[in-house]
Amino acid sequence: MHIDVLTLFPEMIEGVFDASILKKARENEKFSYNLVNFRDYSENKHGKVDDYPYGGGAGMVLTPQPVFDAVDAVTNGKPMNSRIILMCPQGEPYNQKKAEELAEEDHLVFICGHYEGYDERIRKHLVTDEISIGDYVLTGGELGAMVVIDSVVRLLPDVLGNDESAPGDSFSTGLLEHPHYTRPADFRGMKVPDILLSGNHAKIDDWRRKESLKRTLERRSELVNEQQLTDEERNVWGKNSE
Amino acid sequence: MHIDVLTLFPEMIEGVFDASILKKARENEKFSYNLVNFRDYSENKHGKVDDYPYGGGAGMVLTPQPVFDAVDAVTNGKPMNSRIILMCPQGEPYNQKKAEELAEEDHLVFICGHYEGYDERIRKHLVTDEISIGDYVLTGGELGAMVVIDSVVRLLPDVLGNDESAPGDSFSTGLLEHPHYTRPADFRGMKVPDILLSGNHAKIDDWRRKESLKRTLERRSELVNEQQLTDEERNVWGKNSE
Repeated sequence: MHIDVLTLFPEMIEGVFDASILKKARENEKFSYNLVNFRDYSENKHGKVDDYPYGGGAGMVLTPQPVFDAVDAVTNGKPMNSRIILMCPQGEPYNQKKAEELAEEDHLVFICGHYEGYDERIRKHLVTDEISIGDYVLTGGELGAMVVIDSVVRLLPDVLGNDESAPGDSFSTGLLEHPHYTRPADFRGMKVPDILLSGNHAKIDDWRRKESLKRTLERRSELVNEQQLTDEERNVWGKNSE
Repeated sequence: MHIDVLTLFPEMIEGVFDASILKKARENEKFSYNLVNFRDYSENKHGKVDDYPYGGGAGMVLTPQPVFDAVDAVTNGKPMNSRIILMCPQGEPYNQKKAEELAEEDHLVFICGHYEGYDERIRKHLVTDEISIGDYVLTGGELGAMVVIDSVVRLLPDVLGNDESAPGDSFSTGLLEHPHYTRPADFRGMKVPDILLSGNHAKIDDWRRKESLKRTLERRSELVNEQQLTDEERNVWGKNSE
């Protein structure tokens, strides 16, 4: 997979590619990336990339020319062969299913605006996807792009080692994860539940499943699919949802 | 406002503080920050911060000791005076209302884990908030913390200039933003709607409000609060929701 990030602030995100899993995946050639400052594509002699909105109003709007030309450049004039992703609050809410979908692609291009809006022609005639990472306002698209990239790259084949990819990952089971405990068994008087020290793995599995269900019901009951529950669990569900 | 970020990968996020609005806000002393590698607080002679989970299973778990001690250090032993925020998929879904709430605080402490789980005692006895930025799996808490910080800092007094804070910010009106257009009026044959060139501001405002409503109904109808609509708009809403 190759990833291009079109941004006015490449220095903002350089470090993110250079740490932890993304760094390792890059060094092991699981993906490659390129940061493109689309200001370099502006035909304006001062490198301007935004202008006042037609019809008036506050804020500046990104002009189409530098963005179209930068996308042309990174796709060798064939944008139709790539996913061109616009990060914006109006986009489709991002989730794990979308991450899995994007992980199948060969080439992702991210367009990151900064506080301004985008000229609508970028949306209508250039991009394949508009993505929002959540219902909050950010100063730019860079952090959103990095969130998407991080969640996609970790799904690529052989990127995660065994220690890193717990099968109980939140959202893959549909439930929130159960509580974890590690040493010491007593930390400043706060103790690990006896059951986890018992060595009885059937009971431990049972406890974990119940705690996972309990936590999900308490915090995010909308995530629980009643059909996947055992009879006993549906009982717990019934009690919590009353 | 002062912000402490407890992380094993400070180099990952350093650059984010050093660009755009966050950089300017920092230079203008609207907030200050400190990156704390909590590995430095480990009492283990090899600087270990994780260990195997009690009860078995894949993945490593962050031990309580370095995290408790790092929080003690950044709060001068008085964690009760600060918001101690754990970034995790099991947390409360983050939104603009939470950003506004956090923007009122004097001191935020973010705890960022990395692929491992957290020892449950951190959750139960140390943190005041658990936050999730969305339903997708990330390799660590750093990007989530930066998303929260970015959305909070831009709300601090005098951080945004007039050009940057459009009153029509998504989520502040409850609707998605209307389309924006800027020069040129004709770009590669793609044209700006005539109405925006008309100079009739009452009609332009009307067009924008309708487009904003239409886009919200098409993409995120759950955001529309029917009570806030005019009669004419309720008509549009009725048609779209059929």
